[in-house]
Amino acid sequence: MSVAPHKDFSRLCIHTITTRPWNIETAARRYAAAGVKGITVWRDALDGRDIKKTGKLLRDEGLDIVSLCRGGFFPDVDKNKRKLAIDDNRKAIEEAAALGTSLIVLVCGASPAQSLEDSRKQIQEGIETVLADASAAGVRLAIEPLHPMYADARSAINTLGQANDMAQAINSPMVGVAVDVYHLWWDPALEQEIKRCGQNDHLFAFHICDWKSPTTDMLLDRGLMGDGCIPIRKIRSWVEATGFNGFNEVEIFSTQYWEEDQSVFLDKITKAYIEHA
Amino acid sequence: MSVAPHKDFSRLCIHTITTRPWNIETAARRYAAAGVKGITVWRDALDGRDIKKTGKLLRDEGLDIVSLCRGGFFPDVDKNKRKLAIDDNRKAIEEAAALGTSLIVLVCGASPAQSLEDSRKQIQEGIETVLADASAAGVRLAIEPLHPMYADARSAINTLGQANDMAQAINSPMVGVAVDVYHLWWDPALEQEIKRCGQNDHLFAFHICDWKSPTTDMLLDRGLMGDGCIPIRKIRSWVEATGFNGFNEVEIFSTQYWEEDQSVFLDKITKAYIEHA
Repeated sequence: MSVAPHKDFSRLCIHTITTRPWNIETAARRYAAAGVKGITVWRDALDGRDIKKTGKLLRDEGLDIVSLCRGGFFPDVDKNKRKLAIDDNRKAIEEAAALGTSLIVLVCGASPAQSLEDSRKQIQEGIETVLADASAAGVRLAIEPLHPMYADARSAINTLGQANDMAQAINSPMVGVAVDVYHLWWDPALEQEIKRCGQNDHLFAFHICDWKSPTTDMLLDRGLMGDGCIPIRKIRSWVEATGFNGFNEVEIFSTQYWEEDQSVFLDKITKAYIEHA
Repeated sequence: MSVAPHKDFSRLCIHTITTRPWNIETAARRYAAAGVKGITVWRDALDGRDIKKTGKLLRDEGLDIVSLCRGGFFPDVDKNKRKLAIDDNRKAIEEAAALGTSLIVLVCGASPAQSLEDSRKQIQEGIETVLADASAAGVRLAIEPLHPMYADARSAINTLGQANDMAQAINSPMVGVAVDVYHLWWDPALEQEIKRCGQNDHLFAFHICDWKSPTTDMLLDRGLMGDGCIPIRKIRSWVEATGFNGFNEVEIFSTQYWEEDQSVFLDKITKAYIEHA
């Protein structure tokens, strides 16, 4: 299946962390001026702000608030720390509701001090524990599988198959998955697992960027679409085949791009979105 | 299933690259003096040497020459470069035969300029092309799946499931797989795929080290057993449950350890082997 290039920015969303040097007010104004229609808010961007007012400011710019990043980090060998994680996830749900978004992305967490199986149990328990709060607030939770290179400390859920398994085990309309091409592009089961997301009606988010070759940092060297080797458009065709018509969210952590003039970088993002996404 | 600690070094093999600052003659002498029984030779260690004489030197030290590292790197968009890779793999087979080892480990390769599917086709074609030479020389080929973080340029085979698929597709007693805990520890299908290796009688090699948390370099920051979060002994129990009774090969690329006195490092390796492997 092939898919046509995007013709406009009506489904383009940018994560605030992508243009990190900008504060959220600047980011919102510049995104909107560039015709971008969606914003995903990282929680650090809300520091020191009235969250409801910030939500209004974003909507006044004409932006859809696609999601809040991020909840999760449930596992720990220490029970008290697991409780603190639950509290923090409840806080994230409140923040999402105040901001006016209906989705939180979960970076689920892992602990190098215990097995991946134990971490996964704690992740599922954590999600189930906050589920009533999420439902009451009308905030959905997206399990984001992370690349296997983060299995030590960031996520014990490293394939879309595992995320689908957990979403199905929890079996709530409030819990689904986020598909990020950076984490999943290498997976030979990706097409079939994206299809499975669709069949279960829980594909909640689609994140894009690129994998640079070589990649020089395990966290902060993501590429702009077209910089690397991820078949973004092919993966988008699988995502859209499920019926997904939500935002394509540009999520790039890059020391290199953060050092650039962010206005120039934003131009590159919108250009790359049309040419490569 | 649990498994007892090793009681001696009769199944301990070290890769020459693990103690890179030592040349192969020094490595062989020191490994043997420490009671280590196996050596896997990286091709760079043979530079400028008479390979047959080096093989004799290793055997005279009482070392089993477990394998030659490495062949592979078959894929390329350029047909001429693919031909050069075939030539180089034929050369590796000759070197293995001259050295007196019956196994070559394949780091299969990938190209960021083409799809993973195309790279995999070229890998299979490459192996099939050199298979007659391998058979004639009595040298087996082990497909080593590499961690997904190397899918851009080092290997388009990133899970043991994919390696098993390819070995079964090629369907020759000369072609099997190498299981390296560093590349595979995160995979939820690992236990079942190790079992499948055994059922197909093609588990040719078992490599160990550890995943440090955090890991600061994508290539050269491997840990010694016990430094990290890989359940090495659990994975060994799965490997041995297949009937595998070959060497446990310590393969560590580490700028940090290479900077140490290699005699001290060798002591750490043998100690870690008993305590954590």
